Amino acid sequence: MINALGREFPEFVDGYGRVVPFAGAFAIRPEMQRRAPAVKAVRPDESKLVDNLKDVFERIPVRDSMTLSFHHHLRNGDGVVNAVLDTAAELGLKDFKVALSSVFPVHAPMVGHFESGVVTALDTDYISGPVAEAVSRGVLARPVVLRTHGGRARAIECGLLEIDVAFIAAPAADDYGNINGVGGPTACGSLGYAFPDAEYADRVVAVTDTLVEYPLAPISIPQTRVDYVVETQEIGDPEGIASGTMRITEDPIKLEIAETAAEVIRAVGLIEDGFSLQTGAGGTSLAVTRFVRRMMEESGVAGSFALGGITGPLVEMLKDGLFKRLIDVQSFDQEAIRSIATDPNHLEVGAGFYANAFNSGCAVNKLDCVILGATQVDTSFNVNVVTGSDGKIMGGSGGHSDTAAGANLAIVVANLARGSLPIVTDEVLTATTPGESIDVVVTDHGVAVNPRRSDLESRLTTAGLPVRDISDLKSMADETAGTPQQAEVGDKVVAVVEYRDGTTIDVVRQVV
Amino acid sequence: MINALGREFPEFVDGYGRVVPFAGAFAIRPEMQRRAPAVKAVRPDESKLVDNLKDVFERIPVRDSMTLSFHHHLRNGDGVVNAVLDTAAELGLKDFKVALSSVFPVHAPMVGHFESGVVTALDTDYISGPVAEAVSRGVLARPVVLRTHGGRARAIECGLLEIDVAFIAAPAADDYGNINGVGGPTACGSLGYAFPDAEYADRVVAVTDTLVEYPLAPISIPQTRVDYVVETQEIGDPEGIASGTMRITEDPIKLEIAETAAEVIRAVGLIEDGFSLQTGAGGTSLAVTRFVRRMMEESGVAGSFALGGITGPLVEMLKDGLFKRLIDVQSFDQEAIRSIATDPNHLEVGAGFYANAFNSGCAVNKLDCVILGATQVDTSFNVNVVTGSDGKIMGGSGGHSDTAAGANLAIVVANLARGSLPIVTDEVLTATTPGESIDVVVTDHGVAVNPRRSDLESRLTTAGLPVRDISDLKSMADETAGTPQQAEVGDKVVAVVEYRDGTTIDVVRQVV
Repeated sequence: MINALGREFPEFVDGYGRVVPFAGAFAIRPEMQRRAPAVKAVRPDESKLVDNLKDVFERIPVRDSMTLSFHHHLRNGDGVVNAVLDTAAELGLKDFKVALSSVFPVHAPMVGHFESGVVTALDTDYISGPVAEAVSRGVLARPVVLRTHGGRARAIECGLLEIDVAFIAAPAADDYGNINGVGGPTACGSLGYAFPDAEYADRVVAVTDTLVEYPLAPISIPQTRVDYVVETQEIGDPEGIASGTMRITEDPIKLEIAETAAEVIRAVGLIEDGFSLQTGAGGTSLAVTRFVRRMMEESGVAGSFALGGITGPLVEMLKDGLFKRLIDVQSFDQEAIRSIATDPNHLEVGAGFYANAFNSGCAVNKLDCVILGATQVDTSFNVNVVTGSDGKIMGGSGGHSDTAAGANLAIVVANLARGSLPIVTDEVLTATTPGESIDVVVTDHGVAVNPRRSDLESRLTTAGLPVRDISDLKSMADETAGTPQQAEVGDKVVAVVEYRDGTTIDVVRQVV
Repeated sequence: MINALGREFPEFVDGYGRVVPFAGAFAIRPEMQRRAPAVKAVRPDESKLVDNLKDVFERIPVRDSMTLSFHHHLRNGDGVVNAVLDTAAELGLKDFKVALSSVFPVHAPMVGHFESGVVTALDTDYISGPVAEAVSRGVLARPVVLRTHGGRARAIECGLLEIDVAFIAAPAADDYGNINGVGGPTACGSLGYAFPDAEYADRVVAVTDTLVEYPLAPISIPQTRVDYVVETQEIGDPEGIASGTMRITEDPIKLEIAETAAEVIRAVGLIEDGFSLQTGAGGTSLAVTRFVRRMMEESGVAGSFALGGITGPLVEMLKDGLFKRLIDVQSFDQEAIRSIATDPNHLEVGAGFYANAFNSGCAVNKLDCVILGATQVDTSFNVNVVTGSDGKIMGGSGGHSDTAAGANLAIVVANLARGSLPIVTDEVLTATTPGESIDVVVTDHGVAVNPRRSDLESRLTTAGLPVRDISDLKSMADETAGTPQQAEVGDKVVAVVEYRDGTTIDVVRQVV
C-alpha cells in the first residue's frame, strides 16, 4: 500500500490491524460517534478514597490486557507510570497497553515490563530515552502507535483508543476526585493532556501526593469523572518537570536561523494587532520568541494569544501586554506554572481544545504562525520528527502536525546539516508532517517557500530574505554534510505513525 | 400502576411513553451508556459566524419536530427563547419540543406557539407564569416532562433527552464559540445549566449580544462544542435577570421559621469547621442564611462551601472567610454575578457536577445541609413543589429532590398553613420529593423529625426545639386553615414528574 505521500507499508500490520492510508491533511471527514462510556452512579455515603494502588487494582479490578492511560505533564519527573506498572507486575498481571501521552527517560523501567510481557503495547505522541531505544530494537510485542497530541484526543473521544483505566498524576486533589495541576510540591501547571482520558476512560483514578480539603479550587478535572483517589507519598520529582530544553540557544547559527524566522513572520505581514503564535520550548523556538517580541515592541503591536506549550518568555509577553491570552495545554517551566495558577488570562485547555481536528473547532485553527523543528525535511516539504537519520525513534509529532495543519504560516527551522548528517534531504526517513502543511523552511543557508504558497515568496524576496529553491538547499546540505549514511532497517514494523486524522502517514521499521 | 409512594398513574402516558415507577431514592442503578453525538470537523478556513437566527435555521437545517434546548440563566429577562421560537414560527415550522431548564413569565409568548402547534412538547425543571397556567389548562399536545436540575443533566448525558439544537444565550462570546456568562451588559454569572446541552446536543448555537475578540476569557462553554455564533442586538433584559425573590423576608412568622431552622442545624451539630450549606433565593432561605451566619461567627466556625444558586449573602460569607468556596450553578443576583467573574474561590459548575445522580459523584452528595421550601408536605414527609393546592402547576423541583437526596440534613421550611390552605396535609397533591429524603420539617407551630432519622430527634429535643409528630402538625394545620379545598382535576395527564433518576414520581392532571 502507498499513501498520498508515496510512503509504502503493508495493508495490514500485525498487532495494529488494517491500515488506512494518509490521503491529505483535510481529506478525511469523520463518520462516527463519540465514545459512550458506561453511565455510573455514586451515592452520598460512598467514598472514593483508596489506600494504595494495589487496592485500586483490586477494586476496579484491573485485568490482563487492559489499556492503562497516563499523562505526561510531570515529564521527566513523573513517578506515577512506573508505580502503576510496578504494581501490575507485582500482582502478576500482563499484556497491558500503555497509553501515555509522551514517554521520557524517567520511564526507563518500562523496558523491563516490555521484556517480561507486563506491557506489550504502547500508544503515545512522543517517545524518548531508553523506551524509544528499546522500541526501535523491536523489543515490544506489538507496534507502537505514534499519534499527534490532537490525534490522541481525537482517538480517545472517537473511541478508537479505548481506555480501561486512566491513572492521573494529580499535583492536587480532594477526596472526591477534583484535580488540578497548580497545587502541591509537584505542581506542573496545565493538565490538558489528561482531559480526554478523564472524560472517556471507563475508570479514572487520581493519584496524588497533595490531598486537600473538599472542594479543591481551581478544578481542572472534575469529580464527576473520577472514580478513585489514592494518596501516595510522592507522585514525582519536581526537579524533572521543567526539563533542560527550556534554555534559549546560544549557538550563533541557531540564533541566525531564529532571527531569519522572525523576519519571515514580519515579511508575511503577521506582526500586527491580533497576532497569534506558537513556538514551543526548543532553544531555537525560544530565540524566535525573543526576536518576535522585539519586533512587536518596535511596532507597538498587541498580539492576541500564544498557544500550546507555554514558557516563561511567553508569560512575560502576557504580563507586558504583548499577548492578551495564553492558551496552555502544557506548562513547560516554573514561570508558566506560577502564571497559570494565578493569571485569569492564562487559560488551561485540554488536548481536544488545543488540537483535535474532529470537534467543532480546535485552537490551532486560529493560529497565525507556528515555529516547528525537524530532524529531517525533504524537497516535498515533508518533515520527520520521529526518527533520527540512523532510523532510531527519538521523538514524535506531539503538536507538530496539528499546528502545521492549523496555522496560517507554518515555519520549520533547521540547520541545513548536523555534523555529517544532512537535514534537508530528497525524502525523509519517516514522514510525520505532510509537506502540504509546511509553508516555509528556514535554514542557516537560506529560506525555502513551499510552491503551494507562491503568495508568500514575493513578500520574502521583497524583504530581502535569502529565498532559495528547496532542491538547492538539499544540494547545499549534501555538500556541507557529505553523502548521507543510509539507516539500516529491517522489515518488522515497530511503530505506526498516525496522522492527526487517524490515517497512517508512515511506519517505522526495526533498526538492525 | 402504583409507585413506591403510592401514587397512581397509567402505565403508558400518551405523548410520553411507558412509565417507570419511582422505587426509592437510590433504587435505580444506571445500565446505559452516555449519549454519543456525531463527531464533527471544522477546518481552519471555516467560520462559525452566521448573520441571524433565520440563517442558522437554514444552515443546520432546523426541521419540524426537532428538540430545541435553552438555558434559563437570564431568568425573567431572557430574550432568546422567544426570538428562536418566533423564528421557527415565521419559517412555518412546527411540532417542536422545547427543552428549557426553567420557564418564566417572560416566556408567555410560548403559549401562542402551543396554540398554533409550533411547540407541542415542553421539557423543563421549573415552570411559572402564563406558560404554567396554559399547561395546567391542557393546551399543550403532549404532557410536559418535569425534571429535577440534576435529572435534566442526567437525561441529556444518558441520551434520554436528545437535543437536536441547543440555542445558548451567551452574555459574551467570541467568533469561534467560546462563551461565558460574566461579560457584556446581560451578564448572568454561571452558565451551569447549559453545560450538558453544549456537551451533548447535535448542534450548538451561541446567541450573543457581546461578540469579543478571540479568545474569550474565562471560557465557560468551549469552542469545541459550539457550531454557530449569531450576534444579535440584545439577548435579554438585564433588569429581569435578578428577579424579585432575592429579598430577605420581613414576615415575622417566616423569620421565626428561619431562626428555628438555623437552631435545628446547630442542634444537629453541623455548625462546625467544614460545614456546607445550600439555601437558595427564597425570602425564608435568605433569612436562614443570615441566622446561620451569626451562629458561625459566634462559634468562630470556618465553613467549607455553599452550593447551588448563589446570592449576595453567600458571597459576603465567602469574602468574610465563613465559606472557603462557592459552587455556583446559577447566580441569583448582581453580587453573585460580580463575584463569580473575579473570585477564584467562586466556582462555576455545570448541572451534572451540581446534581446529576448518574455520574462519578455530584456535589449535592457532599452537602451537609439544605434548606428547602414546599407548597405542601404530607405526613409521610413527601413534598410538593410542583402544584398549588388548586392543582395548578406553579413551580417544579429544580434542585429540590437532588439536594434532598444528597444532603446529610434536608430541612423543609413551611408555614403550617397559608390563609385557608393547610400546607401540612395527609397526602400531597403532587409528590415531587420523596419523604425518605426529607429529614426535618420546620413550621411556625413546631418541628417534625422524619422517623427514619430517629438519631436527630433527641438532639433537637435536648436543644429545646418544639419537636412534634408530623400528624400533630397536620391536625394543627387543619385547625388553622379550615377544611382544605379539593383541587378539581380531570383525567388528562398534563405533566409527568420525573424523579432525578428518571422514574416517575407522580403525574399532574389537567385542571378542570
